Amino acid sequence: MPGNTPHVVVVGGGFAGLWATRALASADVRITLLDRGNHHLFQPLLYQVATAGLSAPDIAAPLRHILRRQGNATVLMAEAAAIDKDARRVQLASGDAIDYDALIVCTGATHAYFGNDAWAPFAPGLKTLDDALAIRRRILTAFERAEAERDPAARAAWLTFCVVGGGPTGVELAGTLAEIARHTLRKEFRNIDPGDSRVLLLEAGPRVLSTFPDALAAKARASLARLGVDVRTGTPVSRIDADGVSLGEEHIAARTVLWAAGVAASPLARTLDVPLDRAGRVAVQPDLTLPGHPEVFVAGDLATLQRADGRPVPGVAPAAKQMGAYIAQVLRARFAGRSAPAPFRYRDYGNLATIGRRAAVVDLHGFRFSGFPAWTFWLLAHVFFLIGFRNRVVVMLDWAMAYWTYQRNARIVLGKDPTK
Amino acid sequence: MPGNTPHVVVVGGGFAGLWATRALASADVRITLLDRGNHHLFQPLLYQVATAGLSAPDIAAPLRHILRRQGNATVLMAEAAAIDKDARRVQLASGDAIDYDALIVCTGATHAYFGNDAWAPFAPGLKTLDDALAIRRRILTAFERAEAERDPAARAAWLTFCVVGGGPTGVELAGTLAEIARHTLRKEFRNIDPGDSRVLLLEAGPRVLSTFPDALAAKARASLARLGVDVRTGTPVSRIDADGVSLGEEHIAARTVLWAAGVAASPLARTLDVPLDRAGRVAVQPDLTLPGHPEVFVAGDLATLQRADGRPVPGVAPAAKQMGAYIAQVLRARFAGRSAPAPFRYRDYGNLATIGRRAAVVDLHGFRFSGFPAWTFWLLAHVFFLIGFRNRVVVMLDWAMAYWTYQRNARIVLGKDPTK
Repeated sequence: MPGNTPHVVVVGGGFAGLWATRALASADVRITLLDRGNHHLFQPLLYQVATAGLSAPDIAAPLRHILRRQGNATVLMAEAAAIDKDARRVQLASGDAIDYDALIVCTGATHAYFGNDAWAPFAPGLKTLDDALAIRRRILTAFERAEAERDPAARAAWLTFCVVGGGPTGVELAGTLAEIARHTLRKEFRNIDPGDSRVLLLEAGPRVLSTFPDALAAKARASLARLGVDVRTGTPVSRIDADGVSLGEEHIAARTVLWAAGVAASPLARTLDVPLDRAGRVAVQPDLTLPGHPEVFVAGDLATLQRADGRPVPGVAPAAKQMGAYIAQVLRARFAGRSAPAPFRYRDYGNLATIGRRAAVVDLHGFRFSGFPAWTFWLLAHVFFLIGFRNRVVVMLDWAMAYWTYQRNARIVLGKDPTK
Repeated sequence: MPGNTPHVVVVGGGFAGLWATRALASADVRITLLDRGNHHLFQPLLYQVATAGLSAPDIAAPLRHILRRQGNATVLMAEAAAIDKDARRVQLASGDAIDYDALIVCTGATHAYFGNDAWAPFAPGLKTLDDALAIRRRILTAFERAEAERDPAARAAWLTFCVVGGGPTGVELAGTLAEIARHTLRKEFRNIDPGDSRVLLLEAGPRVLSTFPDALAAKARASLARLGVDVRTGTPVSRIDADGVSLGEEHIAARTVLWAAGVAASPLARTLDVPLDRAGRVAVQPDLTLPGHPEVFVAGDLATLQRADGRPVPGVAPAAKQMGAYIAQVLRARFAGRSAPAPFRYRDYGNLATIGRRAAVVDLHGFRFSGFPAWTFWLLAHVFFLIGFRNRVVVMLDWAMAYWTYQRNARIVLGKDPTK
């Protein structure tokens, strides 16, 4: 009977939410999975859509298609506006409301400018497929504008690309941009040489890939330099506007600036009425619940939790999947009247980042490697984890073609530039 | 010397413009190809992007990539605002201007509402990739809204799809919509049965596919009926608004209305200062030039020309390609001092339209067939003409998967609904 079966509401269809839902497949619960979009997104490859290597549907699958055979799950495309913990109710932006017996909140993070929201229109970030298509449009259009521009200074500004933030996304974007300029677009322009482009990677901290060991970060930096990327560490950005980026006294004239510097938790966290950290994340209990509310779980990038050694659980896809699966385990035990499982423990399988064609860094608990073997490992790992058979085949095909021809198959400008 | 080499400006990178440019590859001319976008679009498969079967980059290729080895051609992503025939100059929307010795105008057509522009926001048309992604968003979102809707009448309106116009595009859209509702989305919803959807094809004239022989049009109609499409002929639409479509006294409550009823020539034609027909097209001379201006050519959907038997050259891709190639032939003869070729003559290889999975109609000069053989012929013909090896492979793969699984691989909602 629906009336007696506990109703689990999952907000957000990312790694945490989808893995929690799937792990509840055999549980005697009704699940409602809410997401603003209609798809689960394989976020680790989002930069490939932004840089025209993959199509948007290559890295996304409709949530209701993934869950079509899971009879206890209902998918709703809807935006959660607020959560009322006392009434146990999710208020939707549409005006409707949904009551729950247990709630799993995993709406993730969005890019954030930390008090510099005025920079947003000039330095788009990369979190959704729409973000990726907007960045793709900017990158491709910049070369087109350079080709049409006669003034040398203006042309140089169109051919200057600044990536702000030296984490994995910034490194991937900068490396791929350099590759596009030097290889993909070769011989396609008549008035400009795309190889004259400048790609800068601007990192406020002392080094790129700060979560990696020093030696691997240095290797990544060397790979970037070989690709022609101008890496500047220890250089905080003081201003971004339509003309470019200011680094203290220095001004870099650049018409394309991409933001990979910071994320903040989804604003839904604020409606939970609990203390948030500086990035807006929810400090959860060891069982991923809220204090005093064992029926409310927070997971993925929206949650912050310390490991036994004091380091935080990182905001990466494997952590989100493990949190989702753990919450399902807690709920299954609870609804079956069994004792609760041990507190959540993050299993760290390693850390990997790619720089461009044939260069990557991999850190598997001390087993560290870089270069072509690391790139191959990265490629296989990512294709393996892509959801859906067709996506894997098409992505492999796209990459095989791209590898041999240096071409990128999604170089299509879509949509209009909203700043124009 | 650039100063002495004639400058040919081509406006529009569709079939006419691209074929003219390629046919001038060995001519002693400088060519500038202008297009608003950065890509050539394989328009015959645009409805597949709109109905989530293909990704946008599957049916498009960057113009400058296609022409990268053609040294006498420069591609510029720019919008032509006006043409000054006396000054022999194209005025760009950016404020720049480009002088020409010969001009080929082929900016095609856009969808038109013939005095009912108020219908536009409620009944989007299908001419560009952005149009296709907007229609895809509406179709996919309609099922999502129906799933969330509790009021039976409102739910039925979300599950009612009207396609206005019974030409090839309307038939393709209606057939594919019926297939999506009955097969693709089966078992994916919990509150609705997508099979309850109504798909209506509304044609003002006496029959669908009016350019086909009666017998084939009747077969197409029968195929549509088998797919569950409610075909209404002889029913002009009197009103379209947010609630649906009015056909005289009858009102059909439908939240998704697609416009496939009419096209009008690109507004650039108006700046040519020549008489235009009712659809805004330019009546060209038998050599596709303007009267008194042998250096200005108009081709593709922007031109109108009668054949020897009095029928017009149809607005289809093969006619545009033939016009483009013919203009190149005229220019090559002219610049070489040879006599002009015979007037343009359209070679009609036949007419084909598809209705859905395994149903199509083909008319090859009296050799007429339909059903599965016609569908196979249509499939091979379209994949063969797709530009670029990778696109062919990926499209074949997508279709093979779609055929066996009934799935559609691009069911991803992109962008925001601008009406919300």
